[in-house]
Amino acid sequence: MPISGFPEWMPPQRMIEQRVIDRARATFELYGYAPLETRSVEPLDTLLSKGETSKEVYLLSRLQAEEGQKSDDQLGLHFDLTVPFARFVTENAGKLQFPFKRYQIQKVWRGERPQEGRYREFLQADIDVVNRGTLPFHYDTEMPLVIGDVLSGLPLPKARIQVNNRKVCEGFYRGLGLEDTAQVLRVVDKLDKIGAQKVIDQLIETAGASQKQAEACLQLAEISSEDGSFADAVRKLGVQDPLLDEGLDELLQVVETARELNPGLVVAELKIARGLDYYTGTVYETQLEGYERFGSVCSGGRYENLATVGNEKFPGVGISIGVSRMLGVLFGQNALGVSRSVPTCVVVALPNEELRRTCDRTAAALRRRGIPAEVAPTAAKFGKQIQYADKRGIPYVWFPGREGEPDTVKDIRSGEQVEADATTWEAPAADLYPVISGS
Amino acid sequence: MPISGFPEWMPPQRMIEQRVIDRARATFELYGYAPLETRSVEPLDTLLSKGETSKEVYLLSRLQAEEGQKSDDQLGLHFDLTVPFARFVTENAGKLQFPFKRYQIQKVWRGERPQEGRYREFLQADIDVVNRGTLPFHYDTEMPLVIGDVLSGLPLPKARIQVNNRKVCEGFYRGLGLEDTAQVLRVVDKLDKIGAQKVIDQLIETAGASQKQAEACLQLAEISSEDGSFADAVRKLGVQDPLLDEGLDELLQVVETARELNPGLVVAELKIARGLDYYTGTVYETQLEGYERFGSVCSGGRYENLATVGNEKFPGVGISIGVSRMLGVLFGQNALGVSRSVPTCVVVALPNEELRRTCDRTAAALRRRGIPAEVAPTAAKFGKQIQYADKRGIPYVWFPGREGEPDTVKDIRSGEQVEADATTWEAPAADLYPVISGS
Repeated sequence: MPISGFPEWMPPQRMIEQRVIDRARATFELYGYAPLETRSVEPLDTLLSKGETSKEVYLLSRLQAEEGQKSDDQLGLHFDLTVPFARFVTENAGKLQFPFKRYQIQKVWRGERPQEGRYREFLQADIDVVNRGTLPFHYDTEMPLVIGDVLSGLPLPKARIQVNNRKVCEGFYRGLGLEDTAQVLRVVDKLDKIGAQKVIDQLIETAGASQKQAEACLQLAEISSEDGSFADAVRKLGVQDPLLDEGLDELLQVVETARELNPGLVVAELKIARGLDYYTGTVYETQLEGYERFGSVCSGGRYENLATVGNEKFPGVGISIGVSRMLGVLFGQNALGVSRSVPTCVVVALPNEELRRTCDRTAAALRRRGIPAEVAPTAAKFGKQIQYADKRGIPYVWFPGREGEPDTVKDIRSGEQVEADATTWEAPAADLYPVISGS
Repeated sequence: MPISGFPEWMPPQRMIEQRVIDRARATFELYGYAPLETRSVEPLDTLLSKGETSKEVYLLSRLQAEEGQKSDDQLGLHFDLTVPFARFVTENAGKLQFPFKRYQIQKVWRGERPQEGRYREFLQADIDVVNRGTLPFHYDTEMPLVIGDVLSGLPLPKARIQVNNRKVCEGFYRGLGLEDTAQVLRVVDKLDKIGAQKVIDQLIETAGASQKQAEACLQLAEISSEDGSFADAVRKLGVQDPLLDEGLDELLQVVETARELNPGLVVAELKIARGLDYYTGTVYETQLEGYERFGSVCSGGRYENLATVGNEKFPGVGISIGVSRMLGVLFGQNALGVSRSVPTCVVVALPNEELRRTCDRTAAALRRRGIPAEVAPTAAKFGKQIQYADKRGIPYVWFPGREGEPDTVKDIRSGEQVEADATTWEAPAADLYPVISGS
């Protein structure tokens, strides 16, 4: 039986997922990110010491554990890839070259209550850069460009990366005279859910804001631009603070760099806050055009304090593609398809079982030149063997020639059948592998 | 801190692991196996109903679960990929095309006591074929050929696949007059561990064998051949049984097919038993030359009864590469290396921060043509930037030309520096990606 929150794709959907992973990985490597996998488990205290405590952790216990042994060193499944990465970096700091750029494509688990659209097991594709001491800001400008390259190479709806900077918000709130900036951020983060009036009410009730201060916070959250004009709009609100200036300068760099290298990809969106996460500066969210209501498919930000060893800090910046989440939404809307349900390009027809090894050699010759091929499962009538291919969307059936006659290959879509030699025949490039397409 | 049994590779080792996974996947797809991933968890009763009960299962519990809710539907992490696959097939039988060929490359978990060389989390790469009703035997001959193609394309020690057939053993024991064939198999399976004399003793003590019967079982286990001669050797032992004949005929097909299509890959080894697993016919184990003492790196077999729905059976045959186990052994012996620790092929040197976007464009031009490139982290002295590349094994540093001069690219291994244009320069194929090599 299916288990709520643990999605399983059928093979055609898994093919699409693999194509997404391949594209992500190839792009990450083009930018110089090194591959990493961390173990799936962390000690419970590592999991609870960072990030949101609201993330529900799955604990592990050994079925056959001796009595009384369970509580010793409790292990839990990781709920993201950033916390394990920070642990890995501090644990291996002496062996790594800094700045350290790595990507990590793995499952994560969250023991949430089952509900619509919430996964308990899902795949994330992360990149992060960390350094000892301080990390140059230009890596914050790289994150959206990498993601833009990943997503633009796939048949997906157009992606729009929304960027903000926590220093802008915190500096602005401070400059306004509000002290509990974390609480202000928490309330403003709910804007899309509860609406402007409730945000104002709650700012007044829970963050000690006056009506005027609350309205100013809301005005800040409503600012958005594809170019540097957001900075002017913020300055027009008349708030002064050095942290605000620093944040605006950083956000400008992200927006302007993207505008030059990938126009239309990035927008400054001053309501983006990223909840209670560990971010300290730049924050990213990503929406797919036409799928905005499903939320962000790719998020991240800058964190100064996630990893420390003694007095030494390892600041980082990273971004994470929610692969399962994104594909779950698109599969649910039938927005992605694939041209066949198996990798096979050619079925070698089997005239009779005595010829199986001959047919095996034909299939092997095709494979040696990179053409996915399999021999028919039984020596059924050719009509049934063609059906075997047709049901799976396999485009070609290969017929061994009888008694010295040459082999032939048939495109079962067009019916066209031509003489062919397994050591030289080429499948058209468009037919060699299954083709992924958007709707 | 490292957690016993949960290995973590450094990025160079992960690169090697990924190369193994890529090779496995590409080969599996060439043979027409479709990709599948199943969820990491199964209900506890699914995990315990099949396979060995000695496999220790990791149970999951939600940290924030309501009291009394835990026992409802206990979930455990899967301990192999065959049991979840069998569950997936029966659950989705109506949606799948049979025979169904799939591959699955995933982590599995075993809550074993920590000990040398035993992993609690490890990666497996499986292929299986299942069918409704009956599954043609020729798929049993395909398994070793696929594995042979995977492993021969990697810089690994030569692989030798050892094949046996449970019908041979069971038929032989039965023909000898022994009734508890499962117990005989269990004892004979310990041959390499406890030696011949103890096997004889235990067969007499626990399986009701006479000295003569026990010796005959041992003689069978000592038979081994690269060709069909094992069948004559078995027949010389003078035991008659129809199941024995069936098993010998099947084993001959596996050995002879491999001998013709991939000579030297497969050997009939009649002591191979595969413990208490669910296999009913062909069984496979694989040893790497020079690493025999570390045990099998790739195992599997035919199972007639793993998956059933009502009266309908879904027999299958499969084989599984123990990727973590194999690489753990080879890493431990320093038998595998990689030419650099990052994917980057070219570092674009940064004369000063004002030129960063110019350098970004150079790197982007290289990436567009598939050359992994990154811009230096800071505008340090060129010597330090070259060191950045050198420490990571990156072969090339790119220098932007000054004031209208052309760019140059330097091979920092040879010191050779030539004029180059980022839109046309090609990296030598051997330098484009990190190269994996055996010792």
